[in-house]
Amino acid sequence: MASPGFRAPRQSARQRGEFTMDRRSFGRRVLAGSAVAAGGAALSLSPAAAAQAGGGALAGGAALAANPPRTAPAGGRVRHMRLCAERLPDGRMGYGPEKGKATVPGPPIELTEGDTLHIAFENTMDVPVSLHVHGVDYDIANDGTRLTRSHVEPGETRTYTWRTHLPARRPDGTWRPGSAGYWHYHDHVVGTDHGTQGIRNGLYGPVVVRRAGDILPDRQFTIVFNDMTINNLPGHSGPDFRATVGDRVEIISITHGEYYHTFHLHGHRWADNRTGLLEGPGDVSRIIDNKICGPADSFGFQILAGENVGAGAWMYHCHVQSHSDMGMVGLLLVAKPDGTIPGYDPHHPPGHAAR
Amino acid sequence: MASPGFRAPRQSARQRGEFTMDRRSFGRRVLAGSAVAAGGAALSLSPAAAAQAGGGALAGGAALAANPPRTAPAGGRVRHMRLCAERLPDGRMGYGPEKGKATVPGPPIELTEGDTLHIAFENTMDVPVSLHVHGVDYDIANDGTRLTRSHVEPGETRTYTWRTHLPARRPDGTWRPGSAGYWHYHDHVVGTDHGTQGIRNGLYGPVVVRRAGDILPDRQFTIVFNDMTINNLPGHSGPDFRATVGDRVEIISITHGEYYHTFHLHGHRWADNRTGLLEGPGDVSRIIDNKICGPADSFGFQILAGENVGAGAWMYHCHVQSHSDMGMVGLLLVAKPDGTIPGYDPHHPPGHAAR
Amino acid sequence: MASPGFRAPRQSARQRGEFTMDRRSFGRRVLAGSAVAAGGAALSLSPAAAAQAGGGALAGGAALAANPPRTAPAGGRVRHMRLCAERLPDGRMGYGPEKGKATVPGPPIELTEGDTLHIAFENTMDVPVSLHVHGVDYDIANDGTRLTRSHVEPGETRTYTWRTHLPARRPDGTWRPGSAGYWHYHDHVVGTDHGTQGIRNGLYGPVVVRRAGDILPDRQFTIVFNDMTINNLPGHSGPDFRATVGDRVEIISITHGEYYHTFHLHGHRWADNRTGLLEGPGDVSRIIDNKICGPADSFGFQILAGENVGAGAWMYHCHVQSHSDMGMVGLLLVAKPDGTIPGYDPHHPPGHAAR
Repeated sequence: MASPGFRAPRQSARQRGEFTMDRRSFGRRVLAGSAVAAGGAALSLSPAAAAQAGGGALAGGAALAANPPRTAPAGGRVRHMRLCAERLPDGRMGYGPEKGKATVPGPPIELTEGDTLHIAFENTMDVPVSLHVHGVDYDIANDGTRLTRSHVEPGETRTYTWRTHLPARRPDGTWRPGSAGYWHYHDHVVGTDHGTQGIRNGLYGPVVVRRAGDILPDRQFTIVFNDMTINNLPGHSGPDFRATVGDRVEIISITHGEYYHTFHLHGHRWADNRTGLLEGPGDVSRIIDNKICGPADSFGFQILAGENVGAGAWMYHCHVQSHSDMGMVGLLLVAKPDGTIPGYDPHHPPGHAAR
Repeated sequence: MASPGFRAPRQSARQRGEFTMDRRSFGRRVLAGSAVAAGGAALSLSPAAAAQAGGGALAGGAALAANPPRTAPAGGRVRHMRLCAERLPDGRMGYGPEKGKATVPGPPIELTEGDTLHIAFENTMDVPVSLHVHGVDYDIANDGTRLTRSHVEPGETRTYTWRTHLPARRPDGTWRPGSAGYWHYHDHVVGTDHGTQGIRNGLYGPVVVRRAGDILPDRQFTIVFNDMTINNLPGHSGPDFRATVGDRVEIISITHGEYYHTFHLHGHRWADNRTGLLEGPGDVSRIIDNKICGPADSFGFQILAGENVGAGAWMYHCHVQSHSDMGMVGLLLVAKPDGTIPGYDPHHPPGHAAR
Repeated sequence: MASPGFRAPRQSARQRGEFTMDRRSFGRRVLAGSAVAAGGAALSLSPAAAAQAGGGALAGGAALAANPPRTAPAGGRVRHMRLCAERLPDGRMGYGPEKGKATVPGPPIELTEGDTLHIAFENTMDVPVSLHVHGVDYDIANDGTRLTRSHVEPGETRTYTWRTHLPARRPDGTWRPGSAGYWHYHDHVVGTDHGTQGIRNGLYGPVVVRRAGDILPDRQFTIVFNDMTINNLPGHSGPDFRATVGDRVEIISITHGEYYHTFHLHGHRWADNRTGLLEGPGDVSRIIDNKICGPADSFGFQILAGENVGAGAWMYHCHVQSHSDMGMVGLLLVAKPDGTIPGYDPHHPPGHAAR
């Protein structure tokens, strides 16, 4: 039974896990500093604020363009949100903004370098659980592991604090990297001291930390290769994602579990670097459309949907042959401006029907 | 039974799959724009045309060197070629320029950013087959999948069109990557909707898209780790490749099938970036001689054969211990200018005999 | 039975493989050019010499900093060292400076681009063994393989010569990469022609080649994921490593054997490039805290222990769930200047005790 992950504002349940998030809903995800996210949804940015910010920092002089993309404004805010872990009726476990709203993957969390986030985390389950994060700064008491006694007992609530920072020159003259990246959070204690059962059941979600001036997407999709599933969906059931030609689509790829995978997307490519975007003509990054990844690896990139190739039902899948054959496949459905998708019949989706 | 892949002009059959391609044969691979490749072989460049082109685009001021290497001229041509899929007598399947000439891997296809290629593709087999490509541009009707009904029934011919483009600044000021890269094509429908049996049997080949100014090699070798084979050859039978000290050798590494591998070459290293070449002293790319890769990953690099290390029988192999022990090993045979290879007896090749 | 690897000066045996190497012991590892390393330990640099060198070459103008880090001086020396292979009483095999002092991993070998190293290598075992190295230059007679008859029979000694070189422009104008990198050496003949039994039993060690001006660490730790072990230690027994907040810690990560792994470190990140350090604000390298790697892959990076996160018992582990559950876990114990580690009780280390 396909059960799509959580997005803000949440979509109604869909067959085959099709998602869409347009610029309007993205705009509504605005979160003022220090406020609790309405609905516990993704922390995001005001387009208005973004429009004022960062153009000068955009690589390649995008600020001079006729239609500059929205970019991330300066960080530095202190934010608060609620998150809980719960058992879902079908046996999965998920993170969500409150009991009854958990999803797999958990809600995306977006920060800008310099932001601090306090997460009031409630364990509504009957076993200990935790929140362990990659990429951002946290002191050892926020590690989210049993080793450091930073997990949460059933019925308890604790606040995890994550901090982020900008790149900067250190006193010794070397460079400290910033926190920007496509990261993720996950349980570290359910089943084993490494959260093997928690992760297997769905306790994971994406974290994006942007640099001021980083380009913001129109749509954002998270694809987690978790053991032999995508986002814990059954094989051959997606998730599928929808965009319109020209949309700036951000893909967040995360791997979990036991196996290695290769993430492949048809008809589109990205740069194998921090942003997935080419910084300019001198950027030596390899351009790829296929990438090997193992558990806890994560990367992200932005594409313009259908750029140079047009509309269509573009497959993405794990390219390990047995994995794709078992159904680790979904569609990036790129529509023309009139909403049509050449060769794609939503009532008889051939890619899924054939299976 | 070792059966070497196709090269242009084709070498006579060799024991243990030894290949050589010298500058003269490379020169004969010239293909005029819009012409059908003679023999359906690799699309390539006139050295004369190349000599006129691109020196100024060469990173590091190579144009100022006493003996500048040949570089890729500007693209933009419209090209045509024929390709067929056929069953080989030994049970393998291969792509080739015409029936009776298929090889494993299929013929290398070389393009320069800006080129368009029309491939008249014939299915001479008794099962549906397709041609799916990585890295280049194609509309959804050229996807080469059953999902998009872009495969080819037995006995049928269809034309696949691939396009390529240069890096360019988008209207919004960001950079669109160019098509340059070490890519590949493969079947996507034989056996399963992901071509698992087609790929397993040999339906794959390399695609190189160069940027104008990219350096052209003297010799080019394709090494495909496909399940537990190299280029579908039996274990412990190569393929071996021949070069002379100082030759600019290009290795195209492609992985297919079910397993992950690590590609290792003795005595030589490369930059882990787009070209495998260092762009200059400021290039932060990691220099490596070993790289993990999974199905459909591909990369390429150029080395000067024997640079700093001299002539010899230099092993390359998968470094997963059981895979190398099962024979995923070949030799880069680097000869002195007089043709000798220190310590190597071609009549009693110790590396192979010992197995 | 945990048996820690060799370090210079060697630590007394420790429970759970805890290591420490401070600036003083690092200083004592000085090796004059052409001299035999005292104790056969790591080849390293005089801090005094380093202080004089390379500041101007430091990326980002570190030479202007108030407290510039020590950097690698120019290479070009000819060095000599002894190394032997021996069986350890517990069944492992190890490399060491002399019989009775072998360790797993073998002693770290440090060079600077331009250095030449002659290793008088003795086989004290009862089976043929060899020394095969990644990354540096060696002619075919120093390949360390049976194929090239460059292995060593029981009781025999032979000298292996390794050379290194600086990046330089070639006569044709292109750039030759330098030898700098985080490399490694290993057996290539015990058990199979690829040294599968030798490597499995512990015949491996790290090689660091620095570029003049590269920043030198305060502490250096080698972590080898070898089959399902770390440094051939039993599961759930480390090794653990000790540092103080602010120490410049260098981690050398090497993978060997049969399986892929993902290397993950809690609370710290690094740049996925040659040095693991960001070259400056324009460096597009991805910042990561998790990396997939396969047999013979190696990489290294430097962190400031506890930077932005403070002291603590920071786990590192393979993130493949079954591997971490089986005990591929260790601790980076980062103490406050007063020596305390928040939340860590060395008499009851919860991470290990819980298992």
